[in-house]
Amino acid sequence: MTIERQAIVYDGPGGPFEGLTAMDSDWDSPRPGVMIVPNVLGAKEIDFVVAERIAALGYVALVADVYGQGNRATREDDAPTRFMDAMNDDRPLLRDRLLASLAVLKGLDGVDPDQTAAIGYCFGGKSVLDLVRSGTDVLGVVSFHGVYDRPSYANVETMTAKVLVCHGWTDFLAPPDVTVGLAEELSTGSADWQLHAYGDTGHGFTDPTAKGDSPGYGYHPDSDRRSWQAMENFLAELFA
Amino acid sequence: MTIERQAIVYDGPGGPFEGLTAMDSDWDSPRPGVMIVPNVLGAKEIDFVVAERIAALGYVALVADVYGQGNRATREDDAPTRFMDAMNDDRPLLRDRLLASLAVLKGLDGVDPDQTAAIGYCFGGKSVLDLVRSGTDVLGVVSFHGVYDRPSYANVETMTAKVLVCHGWTDFLAPPDVTVGLAEELSTGSADWQLHAYGDTGHGFTDPTAKGDSPGYGYHPDSDRRSWQAMENFLAELFA
Repeated sequence: MTIERQAIVYDGPGGPFEGLTAMDSDWDSPRPGVMIVPNVLGAKEIDFVVAERIAALGYVALVADVYGQGNRATREDDAPTRFMDAMNDDRPLLRDRLLASLAVLKGLDGVDPDQTAAIGYCFGGKSVLDLVRSGTDVLGVVSFHGVYDRPSYANVETMTAKVLVCHGWTDFLAPPDVTVGLAEELSTGSADWQLHAYGDTGHGFTDPTAKGDSPGYGYHPDSDRRSWQAMENFLAELFA
Repeated sequence: MTIERQAIVYDGPGGPFEGLTAMDSDWDSPRPGVMIVPNVLGAKEIDFVVAERIAALGYVALVADVYGQGNRATREDDAPTRFMDAMNDDRPLLRDRLLASLAVLKGLDGVDPDQTAAIGYCFGGKSVLDLVRSGTDVLGVVSFHGVYDRPSYANVETMTAKVLVCHGWTDFLAPPDVTVGLAEELSTGSADWQLHAYGDTGHGFTDPTAKGDSPGYGYHPDSDRRSWQAMENFLAELFA
């Protein structure tokens, strides 16, 4: 197995965008495709590593870009949330950029367009939930320490994508009432949903670079490992 | 592999009790042991089948009896909850009967007494949570559609057993506030806990005999399969 990364520049509303694909060039039949939506900072090395791990599971991975080529942030920036803030202020545009990215994934050589899913972290978790809310044609999504506020547009009446929410119970962005609210929202949409809550686990629990003593925040190796395993099981079920 | 069932009669407070073991007689080294605590009706065929499935995973299984030999109920009885009711009225006695059953498991030929766990269904889910609350020496427990009311005695200050709660979101016995209450209780006890909530899933979701149109109740094949897989992962982590 030789997993190869490749940068990909693509078009869409407000583009160009720059993502990254990971796949095994030896594959000779179409594979399921998984879109990865990065956290607040945009596409970066830890997302590319996730893409390689997804490819190692046998799927074609695409790290999506919803900020635009070159629009990337670091935690050290003066305004690290500036690109995310713009998207949060225009959720229809976020949705449309996600759809443009998903179309790229479905159109990749070697991807079975009927077998796709999306996963996302933090703001990317919110993004994949928006795919569910807007009735996008994916088999399922996984949100890791996502953000649960609803978009400005109305949800579809029946959510068809399956949903796995991997949630840190002490996440400072999602106290219990917000988490219960998400469960009720997904129930109202008749989604096939699961929520895996992890005790003593805060926001960013999958991210080894999420360090510090802030309450409700930080990398958690056990929850990272368990949520990845849950995702593996979930994708295997989707693509069976 | 030849899994063998064997009835076992054992002593304890208010005994005798009659359980059932399942293991492979070809095993030649000690294995982890898993205690299974049945639902409201007491030990019966579906529990024995679970024991065989646990044994097929490589573990010695013991179906526990906390009602007393011959004390079994069916849904058709005039008072199907009578044995459970007696235990609910005396949680210290329930705990002591659980401890007697666990001691039997740990003492079985072929069980590594340092590698044990307990799983339970419905009332049995409550029972295994009581093991956690009382600081019992097991590596972990799994509650399937358990009942979450606390016992009359105080919880241990630090819960050492790991906990997996497999929970149907629409379970009529555990609305969201009760479920959140359990999460907070386990957090206060500093347990290493996970809660897997399944949408559109009611009480008894693992039980193919749980039929009917009652809201918040009934067998759910997807949640049954997913929760079993979560349990397999959890036990593998405990016994690694």
